[in-house]
Amino acid sequence: MRGPGFLDIAHLGHVELLTSEFDKSRWFFTELLGFREVAVDGDSSFLHAWDDYERYTIKLTASPKSGVGRVALRAASPEALERRVAAIEAAGRGVGWKDGEQGVGRSYAFTDPDGHPMEIYYETEWFEAPADAKPALKNQADKFPGRGVNARRLDHVNYLGKDVVENGIFVRDVLGGEATEQIQLDKGGLAAQWFHFTNKTYDLVYSGDWTGSNGRLHHIAFATDTREDILKAADIFLENGIHIESGPHKHAIQQTFFLYVYEPGGNRIEFANAGARLVLAPDWKTVTWSEAERAKGQAWGMKTISTFHTHGTPPVDE
Amino acid sequence: MRGPGFLDIAHLGHVELLTSEFDKSRWFFTELLGFREVAVDGDSSFLHAWDDYERYTIKLTASPKSGVGRVALRAASPEALERRVAAIEAAGRGVGWKDGEQGVGRSYAFTDPDGHPMEIYYETEWFEAPADAKPALKNQADKFPGRGVNARRLDHVNYLGKDVVENGIFVRDVLGGEATEQIQLDKGGLAAQWFHFTNKTYDLVYSGDWTGSNGRLHHIAFATDTREDILKAADIFLENGIHIESGPHKHAIQQTFFLYVYEPGGNRIEFANAGARLVLAPDWKTVTWSEAERAKGQAWGMKTISTFHTHGTPPVDE
Amino acid sequence: MRGPGFLDIAHLGHVELLTSEFDKSRWFFTELLGFREVAVDGDSSFLHAWDDYERYTIKLTASPKSGVGRVALRAASPEALERRVAAIEAAGRGVGWKDGEQGVGRSYAFTDPDGHPMEIYYETEWFEAPADAKPALKNQADKFPGRGVNARRLDHVNYLGKDVVENGIFVRDVLGGEATEQIQLDKGGLAAQWFHFTNKTYDLVYSGDWTGSNGRLHHIAFATDTREDILKAADIFLENGIHIESGPHKHAIQQTFFLYVYEPGGNRIEFANAGARLVLAPDWKTVTWSEAERAKGQAWGMKTISTFHTHGTPPVDE
Amino acid sequence: MRGPGFLDIAHLGHVELLTSEFDKSRWFFTELLGFREVAVDGDSSFLHAWDDYERYTIKLTASPKSGVGRVALRAASPEALERRVAAIEAAGRGVGWKDGEQGVGRSYAFTDPDGHPMEIYYETEWFEAPADAKPALKNQADKFPGRGVNARRLDHVNYLGKDVVENGIFVRDVLGGEATEQIQLDKGGLAAQWFHFTNKTYDLVYSGDWTGSNGRLHHIAFATDTREDILKAADIFLENGIHIESGPHKHAIQQTFFLYVYEPGGNRIEFANAGARLVLAPDWKTVTWSEAERAKGQAWGMKTISTFHTHGTPPVDE
Repeated sequence: MRGPGFLDIAHLGHVELLTSEFDKSRWFFTELLGFREVAVDGDSSFLHAWDDYERYTIKLTASPKSGVGRVALRAASPEALERRVAAIEAAGRGVGWKDGEQGVGRSYAFTDPDGHPMEIYYETEWFEAPADAKPALKNQADKFPGRGVNARRLDHVNYLGKDVVENGIFVRDVLGGEATEQIQLDKGGLAAQWFHFTNKTYDLVYSGDWTGSNGRLHHIAFATDTREDILKAADIFLENGIHIESGPHKHAIQQTFFLYVYEPGGNRIEFANAGARLVLAPDWKTVTWSEAERAKGQAWGMKTISTFHTHGTPPVDE
Repeated sequence: MRGPGFLDIAHLGHVELLTSEFDKSRWFFTELLGFREVAVDGDSSFLHAWDDYERYTIKLTASPKSGVGRVALRAASPEALERRVAAIEAAGRGVGWKDGEQGVGRSYAFTDPDGHPMEIYYETEWFEAPADAKPALKNQADKFPGRGVNARRLDHVNYLGKDVVENGIFVRDVLGGEATEQIQLDKGGLAAQWFHFTNKTYDLVYSGDWTGSNGRLHHIAFATDTREDILKAADIFLENGIHIESGPHKHAIQQTFFLYVYEPGGNRIEFANAGARLVLAPDWKTVTWSEAERAKGQAWGMKTISTFHTHGTPPVDE
Repeated sequence: MRGPGFLDIAHLGHVELLTSEFDKSRWFFTELLGFREVAVDGDSSFLHAWDDYERYTIKLTASPKSGVGRVALRAASPEALERRVAAIEAAGRGVGWKDGEQGVGRSYAFTDPDGHPMEIYYETEWFEAPADAKPALKNQADKFPGRGVNARRLDHVNYLGKDVVENGIFVRDVLGGEATEQIQLDKGGLAAQWFHFTNKTYDLVYSGDWTGSNGRLHHIAFATDTREDILKAADIFLENGIHIESGPHKHAIQQTFFLYVYEPGGNRIEFANAGARLVLAPDWKTVTWSEAERAKGQAWGMKTISTFHTHGTPPVDE
Repeated sequence: MRGPGFLDIAHLGHVELLTSEFDKSRWFFTELLGFREVAVDGDSSFLHAWDDYERYTIKLTASPKSGVGRVALRAASPEALERRVAAIEAAGRGVGWKDGEQGVGRSYAFTDPDGHPMEIYYETEWFEAPADAKPALKNQADKFPGRGVNARRLDHVNYLGKDVVENGIFVRDVLGGEATEQIQLDKGGLAAQWFHFTNKTYDLVYSGDWTGSNGRLHHIAFATDTREDILKAADIFLENGIHIESGPHKHAIQQTFFLYVYEPGGNRIEFANAGARLVLAPDWKTVTWSEAERAKGQAWGMKTISTFHTHGTPPVDE
């Protein structure tokens, strides 16, 4: 079921990632993923994936603990922005307006019920490739890096949340998301819920945080063009000492071909390929998986690795 | 620039393809592409691609001459349907309401300025896999065929049109399309224009018909998950005597990896892979290519084959 | 270290596979793997993979218990055949000459130290495609099937053996094989040893049989052109109820991209892709892995599944 | 038909490439292909592809004119080396012994009938990865570069020759090669002939030089693991201003998936993927193509580009 504001959010814009290993995380993004560093500001590096049309994809910030900072959503129009801000304020989740960074205009800050910092904005400047790195084809944002994984664009953010249902209602009713798939718990409630804003199969996901913490990150994901890109990525991470947690394999839920690694700061990063799969139906029926169905493992039978349910950032003190 | 009704069209629904070689064309779709025949009615076979959620993808109809019959668009909601029908009627292009086929509800028939028969509808029944062919994963329409090309879903329709500009204005202002890319002629006017309705890079395309005819088809395209699928498709067509016109190669415009063949009835069929490329920006700027830029050929330098500008269906009497 | 008869064996020829589920196994090979049935003789079906140049690849035989029948090796020349037969007889492993089947000429039967039935031959007739299924390219044995996995050719046989070292000495000193890689046990002896006869990285493998049985099969493997073929194979097996035991993933040892399934008779079948990896060096140094190195799992970290050490055919009565 | 010395040559060892644009050619190999520079000596750079087990793959040498220098073949054993040297001397093509470079021991220099400088050797030192770049898997020569095309290993050399037949007889009778495929001219003689030394489908090729010159190069080729690697290579060359002459496409002859570019010095470089295709048969029958068959173009119908018959290095003064 779609929220009343469906299509008011155009897409996920950019994400701030906090890392306790700034130099190594920066190497991970620039050398292994092929991101371009477009600016440095204080403790932060602004990093751009070659296919993203805006000026940056990731704001990487040195921090005592790793985790996720703000996640910003681009509204579909100035009017859509006003509508969503009104809905956020009505829900009592608003923080207030602020100026964006690196070409992003005024942005409205808010939090989801779990306390994750988020923003919504419309104004933005498009990425302009440096004069010595113009792409050969004019319909492309930046030059294809030809380096490491060549990660194409931001794909989705998967939060951990104490209460998946409550967060999901917020995403649906206030942000205008639609749940494309979900896992129902035998005892009631949801183990995880996948939301999309337009045709992508998912953009924002909540997974239950088994530690009962708030505001944590499960992973952020980048899209690749082919499954072969993800196999090559695994080779590159193997060679460079990056911990591969799971995959390459194919998810049963959403059918995404995936690879999970930990970047040097400990944040889980996914590389995701959906093939040609899109949700085009305007009357999509949320696909609900039971615990028993989920227990069958991933599409080709791989059991879900235990750390998938325990590892998040920031780590929880024990 | 988007039309005022942008997002009122959810996606391309189904296409009627006319063929002068019905039996061979049917073999092409079922055996080489892996489509399922869901119904036969008179001179027509209704064929389903495994990932399409509606009951059929192609209505294949025996006909003295090959070409394209109606192309149907699914509206995003009942209200969107009413809005688009009102706009079509206001433009003087309406034909009238009729009942749909194979689970499609009432449909409004109209023509584009070039005379191509089109329809718009909202009501539809979802595809239900036969009891003995349920897919292993519940989030998938039909069982993966494992046969031939395994074409995934309808991707786009490319019409030939006498006047690209006039047809484009209709798509934009009446149907709510947005031109993502186009080729400008030195003498003014357009050689071709690519429109999308949501996040796909294009759904409906007009190419100038050099013969000055009306109502002809350049090609219809099906999506595959990977570029490798398209290479395999080329092997399969080679082995089965299907004429490969051009490709596999990568388009400069839209960057789609492509293969063009003629199905036995002579209709040009494309297999297309866009990788992870989507148009997510709500303020997309139409990319305009000059004739000089276009003359450079496809992305990796292959020159456009001459039949690409002359072959269409129905063939033009000479 | 190479045996004195290195290069006397040209390649693995054909394999007899015993199955307790003949009809289902035959469906597996013809429908899911794309093999052509070239002959039926009594309880056996002769099956051909499209790229194998000889008349058959697998002799599938109905049997109370599944497992492996004879494995046949083609000698590099009539003289090489005589040399290897003399060596086999000198080793006391000879059984005697017999006529081959389906175009294979006289064959010398023998057993390895573990008791697996084997043959060696030189005379053979080349596969001739049926008149209605000639491949489009004259340098190809059979038409590309365009069906299921499209398994290309026999790649290797992996036996279970009670004593890996003893079997390995036989392969090296009598058959002229060279160990390309091996796993050394901490307590001495070998857990597994990979042999090749020419440039392929391996053709015949022995893994220790933890049940202490003799004459069992670990798996037989077929080659595919790309890793993507193996991903597609996993989709096809998922849809058709074939048990996927492990993979797709990449082996650390030999670096082969792999998928293991059980065909309906319970025999483990591997689909293997070595990329462009070949052993070209005439002075190859056997790569030896310790148990500790082996415990790290496969290339990208997947732990070896427990059934990999317990499942073999025929099953062992308990 | 195999020469009497078949299997005396183990494989192609290393190639000296002459370039009139040394700095740019070096950038091409190191940055775009991912080769490691292992040594610099005078006007030459020694470059290593990550999967080659010897110390270098290409000796790149600054030269007034581009073209090919010596091509070195590794013998299968010290005895095989002596046999081939004796045969070369008997054929009157010997030049004499010399010391090899970069770990290669004594080498015997000779020329083919066309005058191309060649060498044969057995002694060689294996590549040792730098301490800070050890590959993660011990069965791999060098760390996977994760840079550009990641070209895996030297695959073959294709000479231009004034008299294809005469050169072919030399390769067969003196070097022990076997012609796997060839193109017969209607007027008699051969347009091209493909030779292999072991299981690869070809290692050394002669194409007729239409200019009537001697000693020129058509191309040298590097192997990739997948066809997808070659598509990615095309993107990388497009972005970096490297001229793509032809492809990616699939050859009819040998069925290799290919891409041809000109490195900055003008030498044609091919990227080649044979999939799992090997010549395993010890009684291979040379596949002969007529001019008419050849005129059909490549496997999927692409016509051979005209420069393919005219461009070679060094260029011919006109």
